[in-house]
Amino acid sequence: MSRVRVFDSTLRDGSQAAGISFSVQDKLNIVSALDAFGADYIEAGNPGSNPKDLLFFEKAKQLTLQNAKLCAFGSTCRFGVEPAEDANIQSLLGANTPAVAVFGKSWKLHVTEILKISPEENLAIIRDTLRYLTEQGKEVIFDAEHYFDGYKNDPVYALSALGAAVEGGASCLCLCDTNGGCMPWEIEEITRKAVESFPAVTVGIHCHNDTGCAVANSLAGVRAGAKHVQGTFTGFGERCGNGDLSVIVPDLMLKCGQTTGCDLPALRNTALKISDIANIHLSGSAPYTGANAFAHKGGMHIDGVMKLPRSFEHIPPETVGNNRHFLTSEVSGRGTVLPVIQKFIPNAEKHSESTGKVVEVLKQKELEGYQYEAAEASFELLVKKSLGLAQSFFDVTFFKVSDDVPYPNGHMPSSAIVEIRVGDESRIAGSVGNGPVNALDLAMRDALKNFYPAIAGMHLTDYKVRVISSGSATDSTIRVLIDSTDGQAVWTTVGVSTDITEASFRALTDSYEYLLSKNRSEG
Amino acid sequence: MSRVRVFDSTLRDGSQAAGISFSVQDKLNIVSALDAFGADYIEAGNPGSNPKDLLFFEKAKQLTLQNAKLCAFGSTCRFGVEPAEDANIQSLLGANTPAVAVFGKSWKLHVTEILKISPEENLAIIRDTLRYLTEQGKEVIFDAEHYFDGYKNDPVYALSALGAAVEGGASCLCLCDTNGGCMPWEIEEITRKAVESFPAVTVGIHCHNDTGCAVANSLAGVRAGAKHVQGTFTGFGERCGNGDLSVIVPDLMLKCGQTTGCDLPALRNTALKISDIANIHLSGSAPYTGANAFAHKGGMHIDGVMKLPRSFEHIPPETVGNNRHFLTSEVSGRGTVLPVIQKFIPNAEKHSESTGKVVEVLKQKELEGYQYEAAEASFELLVKKSLGLAQSFFDVTFFKVSDDVPYPNGHMPSSAIVEIRVGDESRIAGSVGNGPVNALDLAMRDALKNFYPAIAGMHLTDYKVRVISSGSATDSTIRVLIDSTDGQAVWTTVGVSTDITEASFRALTDSYEYLLSKNRSEG
Repeated sequence: MSRVRVFDSTLRDGSQAAGISFSVQDKLNIVSALDAFGADYIEAGNPGSNPKDLLFFEKAKQLTLQNAKLCAFGSTCRFGVEPAEDANIQSLLGANTPAVAVFGKSWKLHVTEILKISPEENLAIIRDTLRYLTEQGKEVIFDAEHYFDGYKNDPVYALSALGAAVEGGASCLCLCDTNGGCMPWEIEEITRKAVESFPAVTVGIHCHNDTGCAVANSLAGVRAGAKHVQGTFTGFGERCGNGDLSVIVPDLMLKCGQTTGCDLPALRNTALKISDIANIHLSGSAPYTGANAFAHKGGMHIDGVMKLPRSFEHIPPETVGNNRHFLTSEVSGRGTVLPVIQKFIPNAEKHSESTGKVVEVLKQKELEGYQYEAAEASFELLVKKSLGLAQSFFDVTFFKVSDDVPYPNGHMPSSAIVEIRVGDESRIAGSVGNGPVNALDLAMRDALKNFYPAIAGMHLTDYKVRVISSGSATDSTIRVLIDSTDGQAVWTTVGVSTDITEASFRALTDSYEYLLSKNRSEG
Repeated sequence: MSRVRVFDSTLRDGSQAAGISFSVQDKLNIVSALDAFGADYIEAGNPGSNPKDLLFFEKAKQLTLQNAKLCAFGSTCRFGVEPAEDANIQSLLGANTPAVAVFGKSWKLHVTEILKISPEENLAIIRDTLRYLTEQGKEVIFDAEHYFDGYKNDPVYALSALGAAVEGGASCLCLCDTNGGCMPWEIEEITRKAVESFPAVTVGIHCHNDTGCAVANSLAGVRAGAKHVQGTFTGFGERCGNGDLSVIVPDLMLKCGQTTGCDLPALRNTALKISDIANIHLSGSAPYTGANAFAHKGGMHIDGVMKLPRSFEHIPPETVGNNRHFLTSEVSGRGTVLPVIQKFIPNAEKHSESTGKVVEVLKQKELEGYQYEAAEASFELLVKKSLGLAQSFFDVTFFKVSDDVPYPNGHMPSSAIVEIRVGDESRIAGSVGNGPVNALDLAMRDALKNFYPAIAGMHLTDYKVRVISSGSATDSTIRVLIDSTDGQAVWTTVGVSTDITEASFRALTDSYEYLLSKNRSEG
């Protein structure tokens, strides 16, 4: 059986989602992640409508891709303009990608009411645009916009739009449910007709999630013979989003007997990486990739999974790079903290006093708004402190952070001063920074490195802020996550407070303490 | 055609979701919302496994429901115990609901490996439990747990479990895809067999979303003849969640020609209300109900919708109580900004100089990290400023915000001082607060209200922080969104800076200016 080609449009259709905006560097990072995962095509922009995309394609020439072909997106040329003279078509060629995706109309309503040209003129536009692009040596994917609505309205015309694309040299006819309103059985029947009508050309499928069926619709297209699936990586896209490739790919491979070039055990990490770059929270309940996709809460489910995983799990979590979790109950609570306790007290058990002590402290912290799932370094410190095993490396006697406008000092709006005490000695240091947390981090590390030179070799790599109870606006509780590195290890710490500066201070302090205690135990 | 019965399990299966926990009052509020929407059954708890649920059922007796029947949930009795003597069955009866849902095993693997009894013993348990409950006057819905996995493993045994339930008097056989691993075509085929085998009893369908197909699977069940659909209201539930009734119900009514008792125009408000009570964010991209479900960002889509809504919308948004939006962004261009410009320059057109001017400023702001999609008040101010139409209400001559640890003043870590100038007069005010933004807001409003008394009548209602370029940790660019109200209108403003205090300052300033210019134009 020939394999299904995976066509990712995260950077093009995904960028239509509300709240999404990619920098050029973001786009390059996403291309690398998708290529490593094994996507066949990466549609990375629309150079005709967005000049910033041309800059991206310029930079993308330096990438060496292992699996994927880059693809630029554009429309058929305007009516009455030769392709060679159409600015958008020239931008499309300017992107210099091996493949291009070109969309055209296949719903007669759109032809007469939106483009306001005749049905025959539209067919000519499709044929001429594609012929020109194939003559320039491009592999051309034809995106038949509104294909399903068009077919329901006038099947002969919809098929003739595909026919014009084939005459123009299209290598793939991708059928788009642009408005996202179709049901799986409609998709299957209409796709089958296209597959039967054009046996020599690959047929593709492109779905939107307006009825909550984008995944099922994509699978229905493949059942009908489509061998090319378009989607975005965690499903984001205009309105309700696109078909989610992080679900469609495992469904195809694990449930439908299809093959793709994708590395399934890398699925979860790829989804996390792309969500991070897009600054979108990957939902805990995302199929296959979510933190809770293999989490069990009900007591009977937990019992069942412990006896026989497949009794309550549809696939083994490691197939897609995920893990099994047991949530919240007193029993599972102890089970979760135990492995961390055993790092320090190897013979600790689930019902040891020390385990109970840690669970109590953890519950209190969770009430305050702490969450340690993403902050293992802070969690380790918490466990050591709860057990009286933490070493005190330093005290912060006081700190003061200020923002002044107009800026007192060139371009740096924030300043911080801090006093650090170690034993009988104390040091004061001050710094300015791009923001209060940056200033505080610089001042604290400047003071600390007098006592602990290793501090000079670490730095922060990421900073995230989350408002966790937003009922009372600027009175809200704020959770800060900080990633740090010493060039080898990477660790994450967390701080919570109503004051964002104080929440950041707590996460910073944990980060320095974690480095020092790590070095101590390694040294 | 008989109508499909809608069975909501938000309060039972939904409460298995990670992070969900309902108070008794929450549950009563959700029951009222679901009843008003038109659900037929509301499964509200498991009194046998959760004693707190009995308290709920006690209080629920005071509710007068218009449409729905309350339903308690429990399992078949334990092997070797008479139903009349089984504590769980007695708790189920104690809930005193007209209907009960009882789950039993239909997958032989579970019978022999988890329950560790014989296949015949399991059938006897089902028959005896249901017979006892129907004799007590209950309407009994049989939830055939793991029915689809069971049928794939041993169809004769799975059907005989249903047969035992019918002999026991079940009024409905609900087929559950408990592990959520099935594909729509499997659901359809296996459901059809059950419908054909038991023509005198209602067949139901209960799906989970582990393959991203819970909605399509539920619809496939109804296509095969199921007339009872179980789900949760916005899809939350264990692991990847349950079939989402806020999507399944409109799909059934608008796409599948089915009738239900549900009030479709109340759909969006019901989803918002239930998400609010559950303290779950209703995703902007939720089909039908999300804020972006009918939002258009791409320039060509916006043009199309303006010409002919159905060209880019699968249903009219008001059908489900939602609204159309046009989002502002670099890809959308002149068509999107025009309606806002026309508020101030009524005869402006797409190709007017003023439109071009605003688009240029907007692009520059977007490069800095601004995004106006969620911040219409800031966008209106930006348009006015770009066109030279903004009135200057005040200048901030300087401000200074500090955090001091240890706190200098009781429990308030932050202090702010600000000087506001209006014309020749200036005022200085200071305040302390729970965080730097809270302190700054209080100080600015204190100074401003001397010039503009209306400022005293507004306050902030929400505050959101997003790190938008996180490559360089605390050097990152930060975007702040603030919601404000004067008791009538609600407006959102945005500020961007590498300094979180300055980003907040910008969003605050926009908020005050928006109120003042709104009052000016209304006055």
